[in-house]
Amino acid sequence: MNYLGLDELLLSSLREDLGGGDITTECCVAEDAVSGGRFVAKADGVICGLAVAARVFALLDRKIVFTPRTLDGERVSTGEVIAEIEGPSRGILTGERLALNLLQHLSGVATMTAQAASQISGTGAKIVDTRKCTPGLRVLEKYAVRVGGGSNHRFNLSDGVLIKDNHIAAAGSISSAVSAAKATVPHTMKIEVEVSSLEGVREALDAGADIIMLDNMDCAAMSEAVSLIDSRALTEASGNMGERDLREVAETGVDFISIGALTHSVKALDISLQITDKR
Amino acid sequence: MNYLGLDELLLSSLREDLGGGDITTECCVAEDAVSGGRFVAKADGVICGLAVAARVFALLDRKIVFTPRTLDGERVSTGEVIAEIEGPSRGILTGERLALNLLQHLSGVATMTAQAASQISGTGAKIVDTRKCTPGLRVLEKYAVRVGGGSNHRFNLSDGVLIKDNHIAAAGSISSAVSAAKATVPHTMKIEVEVSSLEGVREALDAGADIIMLDNMDCAAMSEAVSLIDSRALTEASGNMGERDLREVAETGVDFISIGALTHSVKALDISLQITDKR
Amino acid sequence: MNYLGLDELLLSSLREDLGGGDITTECCVAEDAVSGGRFVAKADGVICGLAVAARVFALLDRKIVFTPRTLDGERVSTGEVIAEIEGPSRGILTGERLALNLLQHLSGVATMTAQAASQISGTGAKIVDTRKCTPGLRVLEKYAVRVGGGSNHRFNLSDGVLIKDNHIAAAGSISSAVSAAKATVPHTMKIEVEVSSLEGVREALDAGADIIMLDNMDCAAMSEAVSLIDSRALTEASGNMGERDLREVAETGVDFISIGALTHSVKALDISLQITDKR
Amino acid sequence: MNYLGLDELLLSSLREDLGGGDITTECCVAEDAVSGGRFVAKADGVICGLAVAARVFALLDRKIVFTPRTLDGERVSTGEVIAEIEGPSRGILTGERLALNLLQHLSGVATMTAQAASQISGTGAKIVDTRKCTPGLRVLEKYAVRVGGGSNHRFNLSDGVLIKDNHIAAAGSISSAVSAAKATVPHTMKIEVEVSSLEGVREALDAGADIIMLDNMDCAAMSEAVSLIDSRALTEASGNMGERDLREVAETGVDFISIGALTHSVKALDISLQITDKR
Amino acid sequence: MNYLGLDELLLSSLREDLGGGDITTECCVAEDAVSGGRFVAKADGVICGLAVAARVFALLDRKIVFTPRTLDGERVSTGEVIAEIEGPSRGILTGERLALNLLQHLSGVATMTAQAASQISGTGAKIVDTRKCTPGLRVLEKYAVRVGGGSNHRFNLSDGVLIKDNHIAAAGSISSAVSAAKATVPHTMKIEVEVSSLEGVREALDAGADIIMLDNMDCAAMSEAVSLIDSRALTEASGNMGERDLREVAETGVDFISIGALTHSVKALDISLQITDKR
Amino acid sequence: MNYLGLDELLLSSLREDLGGGDITTECCVAEDAVSGGRFVAKADGVICGLAVAARVFALLDRKIVFTPRTLDGERVSTGEVIAEIEGPSRGILTGERLALNLLQHLSGVATMTAQAASQISGTGAKIVDTRKCTPGLRVLEKYAVRVGGGSNHRFNLSDGVLIKDNHIAAAGSISSAVSAAKATVPHTMKIEVEVSSLEGVREALDAGADIIMLDNMDCAAMSEAVSLIDSRALTEASGNMGERDLREVAETGVDFISIGALTHSVKALDISLQITDKR
Repeated sequence: MNYLGLDELLLSSLREDLGGGDITTECCVAEDAVSGGRFVAKADGVICGLAVAARVFALLDRKIVFTPRTLDGERVSTGEVIAEIEGPSRGILTGERLALNLLQHLSGVATMTAQAASQISGTGAKIVDTRKCTPGLRVLEKYAVRVGGGSNHRFNLSDGVLIKDNHIAAAGSISSAVSAAKATVPHTMKIEVEVSSLEGVREALDAGADIIMLDNMDCAAMSEAVSLIDSRALTEASGNMGERDLREVAETGVDFISIGALTHSVKALDISLQITDKR
Repeated sequence: MNYLGLDELLLSSLREDLGGGDITTECCVAEDAVSGGRFVAKADGVICGLAVAARVFALLDRKIVFTPRTLDGERVSTGEVIAEIEGPSRGILTGERLALNLLQHLSGVATMTAQAASQISGTGAKIVDTRKCTPGLRVLEKYAVRVGGGSNHRFNLSDGVLIKDNHIAAAGSISSAVSAAKATVPHTMKIEVEVSSLEGVREALDAGADIIMLDNMDCAAMSEAVSLIDSRALTEASGNMGERDLREVAETGVDFISIGALTHSVKALDISLQITDKR
Repeated sequence: MNYLGLDELLLSSLREDLGGGDITTECCVAEDAVSGGRFVAKADGVICGLAVAARVFALLDRKIVFTPRTLDGERVSTGEVIAEIEGPSRGILTGERLALNLLQHLSGVATMTAQAASQISGTGAKIVDTRKCTPGLRVLEKYAVRVGGGSNHRFNLSDGVLIKDNHIAAAGSISSAVSAAKATVPHTMKIEVEVSSLEGVREALDAGADIIMLDNMDCAAMSEAVSLIDSRALTEASGNMGERDLREVAETGVDFISIGALTHSVKALDISLQITDKR
Repeated sequence: MNYLGLDELLLSSLREDLGGGDITTECCVAEDAVSGGRFVAKADGVICGLAVAARVFALLDRKIVFTPRTLDGERVSTGEVIAEIEGPSRGILTGERLALNLLQHLSGVATMTAQAASQISGTGAKIVDTRKCTPGLRVLEKYAVRVGGGSNHRFNLSDGVLIKDNHIAAAGSISSAVSAAKATVPHTMKIEVEVSSLEGVREALDAGADIIMLDNMDCAAMSEAVSLIDSRALTEASGNMGERDLREVAETGVDFISIGALTHSVKALDISLQITDKR
Repeated sequence: MNYLGLDELLLSSLREDLGGGDITTECCVAEDAVSGGRFVAKADGVICGLAVAARVFALLDRKIVFTPRTLDGERVSTGEVIAEIEGPSRGILTGERLALNLLQHLSGVATMTAQAASQISGTGAKIVDTRKCTPGLRVLEKYAVRVGGGSNHRFNLSDGVLIKDNHIAAAGSISSAVSAAKATVPHTMKIEVEVSSLEGVREALDAGADIIMLDNMDCAAMSEAVSLIDSRALTEASGNMGERDLREVAETGVDFISIGALTHSVKALDISLQITDKR
Repeated sequence: MNYLGLDELLLSSLREDLGGGDITTECCVAEDAVSGGRFVAKADGVICGLAVAARVFALLDRKIVFTPRTLDGERVSTGEVIAEIEGPSRGILTGERLALNLLQHLSGVATMTAQAASQISGTGAKIVDTRKCTPGLRVLEKYAVRVGGGSNHRFNLSDGVLIKDNHIAAAGSISSAVSAAKATVPHTMKIEVEVSSLEGVREALDAGADIIMLDNMDCAAMSEAVSLIDSRALTEASGNMGERDLREVAETGVDFISIGALTHSVKALDISLQITDKR
């Protein structure tokens, strides 16, 4: 992950958390005190965000050494050491919260993605994310989805075409919407159309859609849609997939299953920093 | 809520989601098309963030009229209309995702807070949040906690003193840590000390702590701590409270129960925008 | 064009041009002086950027009224009035330079694009731009290309895949590069491969490329490539196209001709502001 | 050139070009791949912007070594190596476009300036630029003018006084405009007045102008103006100088010739990056 | 004063002062409470910054009406009403401190400048400021100097040439330093040289300096320097002028007296906001 | 002092002071020239801001070595060397002004604070600052107050509760204002109430105020208030304390004396940079 906006995000987050300064640490901990510690998993999951956590501490004090003992994407069990840290105590204590907030959140995303991916393993389907991301964290969350074994859907409104019901209504028909898109968007993009019935599937196919999103359909209808499409377009299952039986969905033969909950309803993976050594 | 940083947050979030522009909407929806719609709850919960959602649309097109049909803090049931919207279709479709992302997230925080608060109603305890917030969203999330019926703990590291075990170890003892804090932090702040045993409670009391955080204690120990403290300091129960029986905790007599999960493991409240009218 | 970053661009450009203030205007022109004027074409061309110019003045003084007498995309001849302006003299004189700099630059882009498009009219080919844009002005320049009758290629490195010779060398072969791309990039994107020989065309076709860029080929080779590809992929002619006979290129049957010079070697369209009325 | 805003400009330009990341390079090029290459002139011209190009790569990856083989201001011929580069392949490929965009643009400015300067060599006149610069690039473009052998006119509206016809009309007369300027602007600045007739020259002289701009005059009139002024003020020829015979203008005896086209109608100098070595 | 950076300055200052919000006002003052009040001088002085104060309140709440009862530059006496205010109580109380901080500071600058100017009234000299300004407030402070009856020296290092002893030592001699400056800086600027002896005055004159700064000279030496220069250059007295007898300095015949203390040692003018009416 | 916003402050201040560049230094001083120098006190005082000055030079040129010869908080006498500097001459000359502006201002704050603190030494009172700070410099000024031997009052409106007369009037009574505050602000904060009479003192005590600010009272009244309060609340003397006899105030027994003049009416400590060595 090479993310040019990372420092800006972390510095503004540190300013949010520090305000005028970490007054507790400044009064209790000597400027030259040095500590060692380790980040320990308090639950089973998939780790994500080690470089982000490392950067938090580097921005606070270049003398802090953060040493990962795992890799992004690695599964850990409760009690396992994820990373070690050593250096000036003040910077470690001041950065602890932000580093953990991000590490726990991104590991939560990766863990939920991995669970979803494992449910459909062996089928031809892939788990993909959505634009239901946390404002400001989209690059990181989409990275966590990949780390967890999922794939990314479009990053934002300008790098993918997704024609939904309101667009169709505005354009008059699926056919006119797809034509408009083909005429104006860069030729590097595929055209995706959201439909919720077999009737819609047929219209989208006829219109030349590259991808057909099957929205809120039951599995029987999705199977039929997949047969009908017969590989002439990619297929994507969508609509509250966070609460569906993913294996059943995958077995309809769809190519992709998109799940908003991966990024909008994240359960943080519990991780703690244990200071083991103080000088 | 008067939040000076709101526009900056929303504009950067819109840039994140729009990139070079909403290409689907631009090719399918005429510039002068007008729509009406309503935001509808798809689950039961407590609404929060109406002014935020309204501002998203105002930033995109001043001609969009967003009319709340509920108030922040109001409980809604599945199917209830939360707000109505009317105006240029392009702006409505382009802003829909960000508005929903924030409205759903903040309503999720408020809903979980309200659930926690209702569990301890009638006791003297209050639910409070922590610094385990989403980077960039702290002001909004802390507002959502208040909306849900909780109270706020310190906002950041500079506006409250919380002496934890690592600070105590660095300072040598609870007593020396509290003395150091009293000597240097603004006189407008109380001094809070985290302890995990009755021994620690005694030391904190002797040191003159204003607030004693009882960390990861069982209820019996907390009851004993409350008796021992005997109102000479405020008491706060802490440590995985998201998974504890809150009523039992509250009945130990503590003044505050702080819950990280309110902001670090948010389940979005499901809300959708239904376009009802197009011209 | 709805461009969320426009105000930021214009404000920073105004700060660049104003520094501590427009000292000449402040000492020579009374605060309550009012002027009228018109923007006049001093050369033939295609106008682009009227809303941008209007916004420059609006940011300086809301009382300035800027009234377009043409539309973006309209052809004008020397001497034609493009827009009229009326309002506080100070704001008009202070904003004149930035408004003209942008209006002339964007009209230059649109004019050159229109010239290119007219050369290939009647063929099936389209003119497209590149990433050889002016830093900071990409959204505006890509808009000007559309206004001039061209289409846009990918906006940036994250919203389109273009596998060039160096990527192929790194991946080992065209086939392995295309496979890698298909496995990892969002399924909403097509895969484009740059080749410079018929051999390359065959490999790209076999690898399943969606778009084949024919780089620096002569027209005979391009014709042969188009035959070979036989509509199984889109084709794009590239490489110093600013100096080629575009009609001859288009007649090879390629779908797109990409021209870097549209944005990297812009000749400003000469436009002047004539103050006609002062009070 | 020590330009404090350079990193900010380059980072925002990289964000513009990278969006969520360089997806082609990330999927095709291994993280530890290393390349060597050279920047080669594809046309004759004057190089400018080597430190800017170097900085682009340094911001992307500190391990990239960019070694200039020429100096800013040096003339190069087609085929000549301008600089060499070595380091992580990903950073080199990702930064290539922005580095070239700026290097080609600034070298284009320097080349055009050098051509203008050579036309008047041996006369006493100097080539100067104007405020007709690309928004956001003014510091760099003015540097390129100096590198090409020209001089800079005022940087912006606050660091030079230039009284134009509209200012004169507003102030009532040249004399009152110059008096107003002398009374209010810092005493460190000279006062320049734009005139378009000998009558105007006389008034400006009488008013005590330090510099007289001869706007859109033919060479005979300029010669007469120079005689009339007789070194009591500096003289500057202006008005479409990009299309005039500069030697003839210079031989009228004017001190400066200001040319807007140096920065508003730049032809990029063709430069390419050739990867020569991959590991 | 038309200052494009004002909103940015005020918003960042409000964020500095508000942090997460004005918690006292939010808990004590109803959202719909309305107040009236007046800004009253508690000392004699010259008012400056009314538009700045007005803007602070406008940024907090557009419904607040701030009505100046004086003008920038007007002398006021203790007890005089400077401005009136009416509107939502919360915004008035929240903005009070920043508005007063700026109004008091700028009025302090204007007052000190007016005192200095009055000491030399009737002589030909003018009071000018320096670059010894408060970081971030330079545009406002230089405006306050003008409001107080002084003139501005150069705004920053790029819009004026001031050759000091260290520059002279580096260049080898006054003559070579002035030559270098004349050859490279824009022709719109005068060249100022700092000297501390009559010997230096002679060298500067011979070198063709436009302005000669007489640094830390006694009045006898300055008189002699003025005679020697005999209007062939402008003269500026400098060096701890805040503690000199300004009339005596002015009577040596110098053109300008520059005083750093005007902006580096400002005594705030005491002003208070009295709430007179609450509903 | 670990201040995350320092670089941002210094870079924007350098841009304010450099504009397009330090043209005098660039034309007079060779790029490879090297100098040595020392910062010397020209008045007696307390030094503050050494790390800030060091950082100014580091941002301009990493090769400059700034070596403090004193510590923040150390008293210096006229003629004493405060710090030494060595490195590239251009960076030293370009950064000199900003470094001195901040060093002189912060040392001025520290010096005035130390004078106030020494006046009350031996009493139990402490000197504290206010929110009457320079916009943008609050973190640094509050640090300077601590360095000078004072303590900090609340940092901003969100990290302390101070109920003033207008809040009391809006809330109806001291009692209702204090109740409202206790019910809503974080439990980590004390509640301070401003009163101006013994009557007010009694009400504040009854309401349970933690801190009582005695505003603009004479010393007799303050003594009586202190007796009345009898350590049931902290006491703070306030109101034009910059012009009171601080010892007399302290001897009334108040705990804190807050002085706005420490930051709103700063007299810069005179410090100069003497270049001693040039190569």
